[in-house]
Amino acid sequence: VCLFAGWFAKPTHPKAANETTAGHVIDGLNRLRRKFTRLPHLAGTEQNLRYAEQIRKEWLEFGLDAVEMVPYDVLLSYPNKSQPNYISIVDRFGIEVFNTSLAEPVPEGYEDVADIVPPYSAFSAKGQPEGDLVYVNYGRTEDFFQLEEMNITVTGRIVIVRYGQIFRGNKVKNAMSAGAKGIIMFSDPADYSAAGVQPYPDGWNLPGGGAQRGNVLRLDGAGDPLTPGYPAKEYTYRLSLENAVGLPNIPVHPIGYHDAIHLLKKVRMNIHTNSQVTRIYNVIGRIRGAVEPDRYVILGGHRDAWVFGGIDPMSGAAVVHETVRGFGLLRSKGWRPRRTLIFASWDAEEFGLQGSTEWAEDNAKVLQERAVAYVNADSAIEGMYTLRVDCTPSLHTLVYNLTKQIASPEEGEEGISLYDSWHKRDNWTADRDAPRISKLGSGSDFEAYFIRLGIAAARARYTKDRKTEWYSSYPVYHSVYETFEVVDRFYDPTFKRLRAVAQVRGGLVFQLADSQLLPLDVNQYADSLGKYAQSIAREAQKHPEEMEMYGVSFDSLFSAVRNFSVAAGDFHERLQSLNRVRAVNDQLMYLERAFIDPLGLPGRPFYRHVIFAPSRHNKYVGQSFPGINDELFDIKNSADPKKAWDEVKRQISVAAFTVHAAAMTLTPPA
Amino acid sequence: VCLFAGWFAKPTHPKAANETTAGHVIDGLNRLRRKFTRLPHLAGTEQNLRYAEQIRKEWLEFGLDAVEMVPYDVLLSYPNKSQPNYISIVDRFGIEVFNTSLAEPVPEGYEDVADIVPPYSAFSAKGQPEGDLVYVNYGRTEDFFQLEEMNITVTGRIVIVRYGQIFRGNKVKNAMSAGAKGIIMFSDPADYSAAGVQPYPDGWNLPGGGAQRGNVLRLDGAGDPLTPGYPAKEYTYRLSLENAVGLPNIPVHPIGYHDAIHLLKKVRMNIHTNSQVTRIYNVIGRIRGAVEPDRYVILGGHRDAWVFGGIDPMSGAAVVHETVRGFGLLRSKGWRPRRTLIFASWDAEEFGLQGSTEWAEDNAKVLQERAVAYVNADSAIEGMYTLRVDCTPSLHTLVYNLTKQIASPEEGEEGISLYDSWHKRDNWTADRDAPRISKLGSGSDFEAYFIRLGIAAARARYTKDRKTEWYSSYPVYHSVYETFEVVDRFYDPTFKRLRAVAQVRGGLVFQLADSQLLPLDVNQYADSLGKYAQSIAREAQKHPEEMEMYGVSFDSLFSAVRNFSVAAGDFHERLQSLNRVRAVNDQLMYLERAFIDPLGLPGRPFYRHVIFAPSRHNKYVGQSFPGINDELFDIKNSADPKKAWDEVKRQISVAAFTVHAAAMTLTPPA
Repeated sequence: VCLFAGWFAKPTHPKAANETTAGHVIDGLNRLRRKFTRLPHLAGTEQNLRYAEQIRKEWLEFGLDAVEMVPYDVLLSYPNKSQPNYISIVDRFGIEVFNTSLAEPVPEGYEDVADIVPPYSAFSAKGQPEGDLVYVNYGRTEDFFQLEEMNITVTGRIVIVRYGQIFRGNKVKNAMSAGAKGIIMFSDPADYSAAGVQPYPDGWNLPGGGAQRGNVLRLDGAGDPLTPGYPAKEYTYRLSLENAVGLPNIPVHPIGYHDAIHLLKKVRMNIHTNSQVTRIYNVIGRIRGAVEPDRYVILGGHRDAWVFGGIDPMSGAAVVHETVRGFGLLRSKGWRPRRTLIFASWDAEEFGLQGSTEWAEDNAKVLQERAVAYVNADSAIEGMYTLRVDCTPSLHTLVYNLTKQIASPEEGEEGISLYDSWHKRDNWTADRDAPRISKLGSGSDFEAYFIRLGIAAARARYTKDRKTEWYSSYPVYHSVYETFEVVDRFYDPTFKRLRAVAQVRGGLVFQLADSQLLPLDVNQYADSLGKYAQSIAREAQKHPEEMEMYGVSFDSLFSAVRNFSVAAGDFHERLQSLNRVRAVNDQLMYLERAFIDPLGLPGRPFYRHVIFAPSRHNKYVGQSFPGINDELFDIKNSADPKKAWDEVKRQISVAAFTVHAAAMTLTPPA
Repeated sequence: VCLFAGWFAKPTHPKAANETTAGHVIDGLNRLRRKFTRLPHLAGTEQNLRYAEQIRKEWLEFGLDAVEMVPYDVLLSYPNKSQPNYISIVDRFGIEVFNTSLAEPVPEGYEDVADIVPPYSAFSAKGQPEGDLVYVNYGRTEDFFQLEEMNITVTGRIVIVRYGQIFRGNKVKNAMSAGAKGIIMFSDPADYSAAGVQPYPDGWNLPGGGAQRGNVLRLDGAGDPLTPGYPAKEYTYRLSLENAVGLPNIPVHPIGYHDAIHLLKKVRMNIHTNSQVTRIYNVIGRIRGAVEPDRYVILGGHRDAWVFGGIDPMSGAAVVHETVRGFGLLRSKGWRPRRTLIFASWDAEEFGLQGSTEWAEDNAKVLQERAVAYVNADSAIEGMYTLRVDCTPSLHTLVYNLTKQIASPEEGEEGISLYDSWHKRDNWTADRDAPRISKLGSGSDFEAYFIRLGIAAARARYTKDRKTEWYSSYPVYHSVYETFEVVDRFYDPTFKRLRAVAQVRGGLVFQLADSQLLPLDVNQYADSLGKYAQSIAREAQKHPEEMEMYGVSFDSLFSAVRNFSVAAGDFHERLQSLNRVRAVNDQLMYLERAFIDPLGLPGRPFYRHVIFAPSRHNKYVGQSFPGINDELFDIKNSADPKKAWDEVKRQISVAAFTVHAAAMTLTPPA
């Protein structure tokens, strides 16, 4: 375990001998990042396959027991190379008098790079709609409501919205629902430029010619749109394009703000993007567990990038690579983890989490039986302020314990732990005096593992200051300006932040794979359930008359939560006199699974976790008790309140039952 | 294990000392049967609760570690006590000139018994439809087709069908689909009287005044019609009656053949049956496992009866009771099974498997993690000819091995094994030279465990000669003539057949709970999958042009089955050098689970086993590859053949994927 001593440089001994190893870790992180950000490696392209092969080769050299390439044939979407996408202003004769740019200005040093895909909205419908342009702010539900109240219709018109606040696919869905015939999304400097920061390359703001790529699907966990529920193998039956899951039926296009300011009342969209079934490749590596080879701890992150992937995903892929190297070194010294470690380099995350979801579908049965936890490794850095962790409640305690063992990467915080640094910057004031940990939403590859299969999951990254920085992600997100250099020069010049994130992710995986007793805290889950139940009941109590009239009560849910807390407390007490580790660990492992309802959430068959789901309004945000939550949200606009409140009651009963059932899994066997 | 030596009286030593114990077993079987068949104990009645309490008390006395009563509140259906159900012949003035009988003639010795529920169809709609009567043979799909071809419409008419061939709920559904406004079912002597046999009490045939009770639901595994997918607890949200699962919307009534011969062209049905939420009680007992307390082997059978339950279910409930007594005696000698044993006395089986399904729903999470196998104990005897076993393929080998250790109960077969006796009478000629074992369909309490949860399951009983006896079940089935005496006098005068069935059921449970290595044969599953795949492909190949035209191929399924066979072979080979029993047993246990698709079969969300389902046309019959099967059955009447064949292709791909996924669970961990 000597190498991981380097990972966990005790904050009290900042200048210990471990610093050499720590330096090696930084070198390792940088080597892969530099190497794999030179060329664009979009999912489905030759270059991304080459990187996959290289990763496979290196992981074998690092000493993994086995590494395999796992291909799937999924629906991807690319611009038409001979017919570029753009938006025009047309005059009254239909002549195009202004066209938006076909590409972003390429940053210095990358002028000769071929195959930079121009900004586009993957899975946009094709078409050349022409019409009046209506501005709808962020394109949120409430923005469309507001227009409606102002008696401005968007039916038959083209809407323009600014990026930010919610997932772009939700904007497109809202525009479709409102009857728009096309949607343009732009990056508003108000959202995508930090104050006092220069545009790239002089700073880390988005230049006016830059635009955000991204898919505009509404998959709700389905993975490949043509093979929902099943892996996209050669023999798998595929839906026709008309029946595909989540594809928008209107043209969509993203532009930068230099173009946005030109757009006048009437525009024409020219969109020729194609969907096509394309082969993608996951790389899957393993170290067999010494004691429990049939228990899996997974560290996975994607490899495909819109262009260079300087931040997204290579800052994260480098962490996976370096973790593999670290475990390989341990292996070479004779060590083997107690449980099996699985490392994954996912493909086609940018097209809707496809590589990770198809592999989850392919391996669902085995994973349901054997998977202990999934740790996600997308972008390691999206800001320069502090740590951000989203995870299942049973991992809170491990995250806290671990970050107390890791040194703060910030200047002037020598001798301070990451935990203290984080705590100081982002205290969870309302609930408790500890660093904030958020609920998992979606938007990265943990989704199928956590929300569909019920495997305990976590993600960690360095982030911005939530109190002052309002933009989603980071300014150059999904633009050509996401280079190796943007991290090097601005986000993490000493690379200590990247290293700290690597220590958190690697540390989670290490502890989950090697502790005799699984480091999952069931009391913490009980605690969180209590808070979620309080919160959803408060939400419902905004309608006291209706609750009275329709006999809506949260008693059964509160009683289930109390019962769960007792079961959790008893369970932890029994851990003191532990004599059947395997049986107890099974209970810990399967607790998350117990929250899965095979019937899924209403209308979202692949979102099956009764406690957590991505919000319907912004998939990046995690929601607790989503079934009840969604019903309560809709209730004010319901045409049939009795029916709507009946559905609230049904959802409360499902939640109460599920919490009871989960508590049962914690009771002593037999 | 001394007591079970009595159970397994080696056929080579028929007169060994064990005979004493064997005699005790028979006494035990008779004691409960006699005691619990004196009074009617319909589900939801006081008397059935009293029996439950008595069983609970005795199981505790027998030495179980714990016995609990588990109540649920489910929808049951009873005749209206003040308005009897009957059918009339009406004259042209609407005057009732003949009425069917309101009750069956009560058998001798039971004249003073109160609370005998008259023959009725549980969950019939209420109503007094009047109309022309149309005879539709057995009420099968093909019978209605034939009428259609003869240009006889049943729309707006009342149909009369004879019992037999298919489940009565399917008859009702077919009548509804054809537009009938009521359906009468009668027991035709051609179907319900064996040749040369007298009506009860002089023989075991159904008297002319007898009629068959039964529920007419189409639940497809939903359990309580008001709480599909969730246990019917006090707090559970309930659907309204209009939205309940599986209730027919036309009146239904059963009559005997003495009444049937009177019915003329025009009749009036008078049906006042009520549905009401009613409390039912399961009794659940346990013996904690010594080595693997978190692995469960379940022996369950129902306790509720339409009237006395002489055959159905008490001949089976007696087996459970006697098995509990046997295990209790072993316990008193210091023995404990390796795994936990669970014994269940289910309630409300007759109303749609409600007790067992609600408990399965209540405990789904825990059972998915921990249940090794489920052995069903409904009626132990339905004929006097030989053994009948329906089970999952992985239990075939255990059933064969076990029956070789049990003596034949037949006169003149002293020294012969049950296996040989069975083999001689019902050879599986077409497929192999061994006794026939059938696929599990539905119609008893194993359904939720096997078809919904994917737990290896089996049932065994003594049966009639399938080559000569054509009626479903047995003549007095669900009539008041199902008494203690009908078994005593006719079916099993020496009680050796009941004992043999008890030995099979008890032996299965004993071996599954106590063998170090689980006695599940994965090679046998591979073998069966191969046969099913061949058979379904042959079915499709009846349409060679369409298969060509729409590009339908079974290659992926055959390849998946081959792959499964290889994985199964390798798995069994590794068993030779076994060092991780728990991990290997988990693989064995979870194999059945691996065939579960959370998405369910098309339109049947609670039938989730991809390899087996009850037939849509007769739920008593098990069907392999039901998804493909159903599509192929419908294909000749499809309005859109391209779409139908597309669905065949999709179902083949789901089946192939599922078999691949199941094979993956057999590969060595990591």
